[in-house]
Amino acid sequence: MDFTSQLQSYRERIEHGINQLVPVATTRPARLHIAIRYSLQAGGKRLRPVLTLAAADIFLSRSNAPMAPVALNDPLPVAVALECLHTYSLVHDDLPCMDNDDFRRGQPTCHKQFDEATALLTGDALLTLAFQLVARHYPTNPALATALTGILADAAGSERLIGGQMEDLLAEKNAATTTAELDYIHHNKTGAMLTAALLAGGRCGHATPAQLELLRVAGQHLGLAFQIIDDLLDATTDSATLGKTAGKDAKANKTTYVKLHGLEASRRHAREQTDAALAALNRLPSGAPFLSALAENMAARTS
Amino acid sequence: MDFTSQLQSYRERIEHGINQLVPVATTRPARLHIAIRYSLQAGGKRLRPVLTLAAADIFLSRSNAPMAPVALNDPLPVAVALECLHTYSLVHDDLPCMDNDDFRRGQPTCHKQFDEATALLTGDALLTLAFQLVARHYPTNPALATALTGILADAAGSERLIGGQMEDLLAEKNAATTTAELDYIHHNKTGAMLTAALLAGGRCGHATPAQLELLRVAGQHLGLAFQIIDDLLDATTDSATLGKTAGKDAKANKTTYVKLHGLEASRRHAREQTDAALAALNRLPSGAPFLSALAENMAARTS
Repeated sequence: MDFTSQLQSYRERIEHGINQLVPVATTRPARLHIAIRYSLQAGGKRLRPVLTLAAADIFLSRSNAPMAPVALNDPLPVAVALECLHTYSLVHDDLPCMDNDDFRRGQPTCHKQFDEATALLTGDALLTLAFQLVARHYPTNPALATALTGILADAAGSERLIGGQMEDLLAEKNAATTTAELDYIHHNKTGAMLTAALLAGGRCGHATPAQLELLRVAGQHLGLAFQIIDDLLDATTDSATLGKTAGKDAKANKTTYVKLHGLEASRRHAREQTDAALAALNRLPSGAPFLSALAENMAARTS
Repeated sequence: MDFTSQLQSYRERIEHGINQLVPVATTRPARLHIAIRYSLQAGGKRLRPVLTLAAADIFLSRSNAPMAPVALNDPLPVAVALECLHTYSLVHDDLPCMDNDDFRRGQPTCHKQFDEATALLTGDALLTLAFQLVARHYPTNPALATALTGILADAAGSERLIGGQMEDLLAEKNAATTTAELDYIHHNKTGAMLTAALLAGGRCGHATPAQLELLRVAGQHLGLAFQIIDDLLDATTDSATLGKTAGKDAKANKTTYVKLHGLEASRRHAREQTDAALAALNRLPSGAPFLSALAENMAARTS
């Protein structure tokens, strides 16, 4: 299967998984479950769950056996859990006390569509749902379930995702933010969840510790590349193309790669990080061709 | 050991556990970890973790072997996890978009002491930390870790704790809230976490399914009793005694047991719920004397 078809196939599995595994919108309280589905179905790229499914496939070769029965180590539930975590972080990040964003992926953000309290609870519920999914869907493989819980909780915790958010807020008030501080923020805000997505897939595929380490290295570099490109797009693309408010960083006088290094050096940094990710992926079985193509695809993205 | 000494002993174990298992305040980012510890150490009753330790002791008889080595099924990490979940729910519930409370346990609430964004992230971090604790501290007993993750995530999820919060918000705008709706809110807002605390302890103690069911029934009744007494205290006690703003329910014209049924009938309902909890506890080994005394103690509380 070529890259585009494989990506489409992964995304279809993820949409199906979200639809099957997330409580239906009529579940009491309906307002909350409507808001949860609204936020999850706002049409993102599904990057994190795609990473999980693709990382598992390096070892499971599931793509060669599309009709195989659902295994005890099916990566789909934890892939959906990762999308829940990602969506929760966006819903809370968009709140007025954080980034105060009115649009996300071209749609009104959760607190604009509903209200602040509902958005707060929707984020809380999505964070919790991630752990419910892991606890529920690997009942006969508790060692895997516990490893996945640890991967998700560590990546989302106070020393990674939330730590990155906190330092990002502090940096906004501090014009003297350094490259090292910006790297810390991006490693944790973005890199932690991309890495967790790859590690979760690797765990489902019974990757060896050395293979998990390669996935971790790839995730960290992909995360940094992703964030530098985000900064570049915010500085150079209009809101309509981006699907969210563009030019916000400069307006807020926020420290970004572009502000610290300029456009050209930032593009070069992004390329170096992508190359470092590719070098790690290349050492995985068969050179992980889908993930390598995805890394190139991410480097060339325009939204 | 008499009830008061045993309660004190449990609380000391819990304070020690919080101090040992929660990241130190100097962990980067320091502001976040200071806020996490500020919120956890605001001096609550530690009711949920006490329930966990006491429920485990019914089966482990740990109170008879105070010098026993830490077992694979030590209930302390999950007890601390339950306090993290409880504290997260308070920090988010106090935010301006929710109850907008300035004081909690006699101290400024997290968003008053720090700011709204820090309080949002502090709650998110505490919720995540609960699952980190479970994943980290039962590594050699993954079946227990997975069961505990499921108990915590289900209790905190969109159909229990968060569901109750959501319906509570909706009820505030609806003067026609019925007793059945109020029961739903209280069963989920309060009962779910008290039940989870007892079940987590029972799981650590290897309770049988029938014993877990008795703990579940006791938790539901205790939760309802607890909430009715909260309504009574809000209506009849001054802020200084309560350590938080009193009379808020009436001022907000919020539907409470007191508003629906009056003081006398509410006191009778609370007693009936406490008696139903005691009847379930009485069927556990030795009649669960500590938990029974705790139920009576909760029924007589004045803050």
